[in-house]
Formats: sequence, C-alpha cells, structure tokens
Amino acid sequence: MEDDYTHGYSCQESDRLHDQASVLTDLLHFDTLYPSGHLVLEAGCGVGSQTRILARRNPNTRFVAVDISRTSAGKARQFARSLDLKNVRFQVQDINSLSFRSRSFDHVFVCFVLEHMADPLGTLVELRRVLKDGGTLTAIEGDHGSACFYPDSDAARKAIQCQVRIQADAGGNANIGRQLHPLVVRAGFREPFVTPRLVYANDGRPDLVEGFTRKTFTAMIEGVKDRAVAANLIDEKLFDQGIRDLIRTAEPGGTFCYTFFKAQAVK
Amino acid sequence: MEDDYTHGYSCQESDRLHDQASVLTDLLHFDTLYPSGHLVLEAGCGVGSQTRILARRNPNTRFVAVDISRTSAGKARQFARSLDLKNVRFQVQDINSLSFRSRSFDHVFVCFVLEHMADPLGTLVELRRVLKDGGTLTAIEGDHGSACFYPDSDAARKAIQCQVRIQADAGGNANIGRQLHPLVVRAGFREPFVTPRLVYANDGRPDLVEGFTRKTFTAMIEGVKDRAVAANLIDEKLFDQGIRDLIRTAEPGGTFCYTFFKAQAVK
Repeated sequence: MEDDYTHGYSCQESDRLHDQASVLTDLLHFDTLYPSGHLVLEAGCGVGSQTRILARRNPNTRFVAVDISRTSAGKARQFARSLDLKNVRFQVQDINSLSFRSRSFDHVFVCFVLEHMADPLGTLVELRRVLKDGGTLTAIEGDHGSACFYPDSDAARKAIQCQVRIQADAGGNANIGRQLHPLVVRAGFREPFVTPRLVYANDGRPDLVEGFTRKTFTAMIEGVKDRAVAANLIDEKLFDQGIRDLIRTAEPGGTFCYTFFKAQAVK
Repeated sequence: MEDDYTHGYSCQESDRLHDQASVLTDLLHFDTLYPSGHLVLEAGCGVGSQTRILARRNPNTRFVAVDISRTSAGKARQFARSLDLKNVRFQVQDINSLSFRSRSFDHVFVCFVLEHMADPLGTLVELRRVLKDGGTLTAIEGDHGSACFYPDSDAARKAIQCQVRIQADAGGNANIGRQLHPLVVRAGFREPFVTPRLVYANDGRPDLVEGFTRKTFTAMIEGVKDRAVAANLIDEKLFDQGIRDLIRTAEPGGTFCYTFFKAQAVK
C-alpha cells in the first residue's frame, strides 16, 4: 500500500474525514454502544474521526486506538486531547500484526480500514485473535459500486472508477462493503449480522447534500484527479466533467445514493 | 410501450410478481397504512400483487384498482375473489387519462408502474388531479443502477444493462427510483419524503436469497434473454454467463443488494 495514497494523511483529507464522520454519525453509529468498563480496540484509527464519536458516545468505556502511521496516530492523540477525551489511549501498531496478547479486548471496532487492506480476511483473523471469546466485532465499510445519482452521468461514473482503480492498484478495494458478510463468516466469527446503511441525499436533506455528496464523496473523487490523469486512467477534461456532474447531483432536483455496510459479529 | 414487454402479462411473470410482492412486503409496506373508510386509488394494479397486500393490511379502507390492460385487471379481479378480498373494485383505465373527477380520492398508491411510463411526470400530475387536497401520494419504484453484488461480474452487469436498455426502448426507465424525489416535487406535491428501502440478501437471509435474488431479480433479467439476443444487444454466451454469475451471488458466500425507493407526499 502506498503511504501517500491512503485516505487521511493530508490536512485536506483530515478535514474531509471529520466532515464525513459528523454527517454520518447517526446513520452509522446510533447502535455503536458499549458497556461501561469494557475495553475496546479501534483498529486503524487514522486521524481520530471515528475515535471521537466512539469515545463520546461511550464515555465509560475504555478505548485503545491504534494506527500504523505515527503521523496519523499523533494527530488523533492531539485531536482527542483538544476535545478532552479521557477514555482513549493511542498506539502506533500494524493491525495485521498486533502486539497485544490473544483475548485482550472485549470488543474490536474497525471502520473504513478493511477497504485499504491487501488481505482483509487476514486482518479480520488477526482482529479476532485479540478478541475475548464472546467479544464482538464491529466493522463498517463503504462500497463505491453502490453509488447511484440523478442526473446520471457516464463521466461521473468514469471519474469514480478512477478512484476504485487507484485504490485497487494500492492493494485496496473500494467496493468491499458488499463483501463484508462473507468475509466476517470466513474469518471465523459467528452470528454475523450485516446491515446496509444507505445515505440518500436530496433537496429534503440539505445537510446530507452538503456534508456527504459535496464535502465527502465528491471531494474524495476530486482528490484522485492528479494521480488518475498522471496514470492515464482518464482524460483530464472527462474527469473534470465527471466532477461537475457529481456537483450537479448536489444542486436542486439532484439526488445521490451511497450505501455503507455495518457488520456485527461474535467470537 | 410495447404490450408484450411490460412486466406482468405472462403467467410466469404473474408468478414472479407475486413472489416479489411476498418477500418484500415488510420492507416496502410496513408503513403502507390507510385510515378506515378512506378511498384509495391503486394506479396500475397489474395482476394484483400489490392490491392483495394493500387490501389485507387495510381491511377497512376502500380501494379502486385500475389497470390499462383488460387481461391484467381481469386476473387481478379473479385473484382478489380467490382471496375473498371485499374492499377492492377493479376497473380498466389508462392512468395517464383517468375518467375520475378531480379530487375523487383520499390517497393514491402507485407501485412499479412509473418505471414503465414514457412521461412519469405527466402521470404524477394526472394522479395528483384525482387526489383530494390534503390527500397523500405513495409511489414505490426500484432502480437497477443500485444493484451491486458479490462476486462482482462484468457479464452480470451487462445482462442487467440489457433489461435497462429494453425497458428504455419501450419508453420506460428501470433506473427511475433515484429520480422519485425530484419527480414528485416537480409534479406539485408538497412535503415530499422519500425513503430508500434496501434489500441485502446474504447467507443470513436465505428467504431474501431465494425470494429476491433468484426468483425476483435474476428471473426478471433472465426473462429478457430472447429479446436481448434478437436485438443484438449482447452475445448469447455472455448473457448466459451473466445469469450464471447472478445465480452465483445467491450461493453460499454471495451477496446481493438492491434499493427500492418509496415516496410519500401530500397534495
């Protein structure tokens, strides 16, 4: 995986990820609740966008948030300190090879991370290892193949495909959401339960239009422009048209749909 | 619109539509509830699959179900009689030019019908005409562009595109779901509220795998094979591969997602 690719490393990306986390909080996290005193591993915390939500929603739960990037973990720690979150510790760790003993955690939480893993099944097996028997896994991922919008646009779909391709070239999978159920089953978890969480932005939901269609999804696709054009994946004019068409879906009369998948399962 | 195309005219199609209606009942209709004594128009009842659900869930509501096809309306009437539904009357009518006076109905219900209309906006305007002031519209449509599945398959996506293309050539739009919100707004309704209803079939939901992935969606795509091949939209072998790949998504470890959109609005 190229270190300069993964979402979350640049400042602009940090802003985008915090925006994304805020507008999607209810949809993704209304049921992310942990008991008092339990110990939860957040695997791949990035700059701490999800950490903030987890720690605030569960003030009496203890979190250990790890990330392979020292820079990201440092930003997350600073962010948590600025919010006065007292129930999280941060560590630099590779989630594919954790230093924790087996059966260390009551729960494991992993969000927007498996999409970047070359071997997401192996990652899930490692996360299962550090989970206590009877402990739960929560995994959340998006799926770019679920994006559908009005007005439809071939250029927009091609621009999205650039992001899918670039992520695949870096060893990831932007379409992993649909695959969460079989992955969790194959990793050995039981009682797998996966619920799709669909964002449907339209004129009746200006918060989603602004926070999701524009600032999250379109901003993310726009972010791969230079790499896509440099790699000859697309003509620059066509890419720009695709972005304009995505922005059009955020204007009056436009709609945008995207599905996240949330898996919950037991060891 | 070609009379031999529209879903619901053949016997096999009738079976498929009843299967679809049963497995999706909770998802689409848990909130399709009308007050006692109110009068509801079902616009485009086809062979009566939705009519059965409406009439049973709302035994004290009166329904008038209309369809442009005398054959379909006749089958629907027979079906309703066989189920002893006493609160529905059937009529042969063109929903784009209804014989009812303006403001005749308390509510209008239209499901899997706008997708076949050459001018869905015009249809909605006509449906709004026969609605009393303060009455409600309920419209439900699918969107083939929302289909995403695992394992992914280019052949399957091309087979689905054949159905989309054939429906478009017949004047319809298999991707209309995403467009419901702006259509309802443009037709003059107020308080538009559109909720996506996502079907996610996986090993944990064998009822959906069988009832939706196989018997509804794959059966529908399979149904356009002869026309697709005859029209040179696709090579027969590729189409067959696409169907096999869709069936594969209904086997262990496969997943299938599809989104319906339900609009509710007020005149």
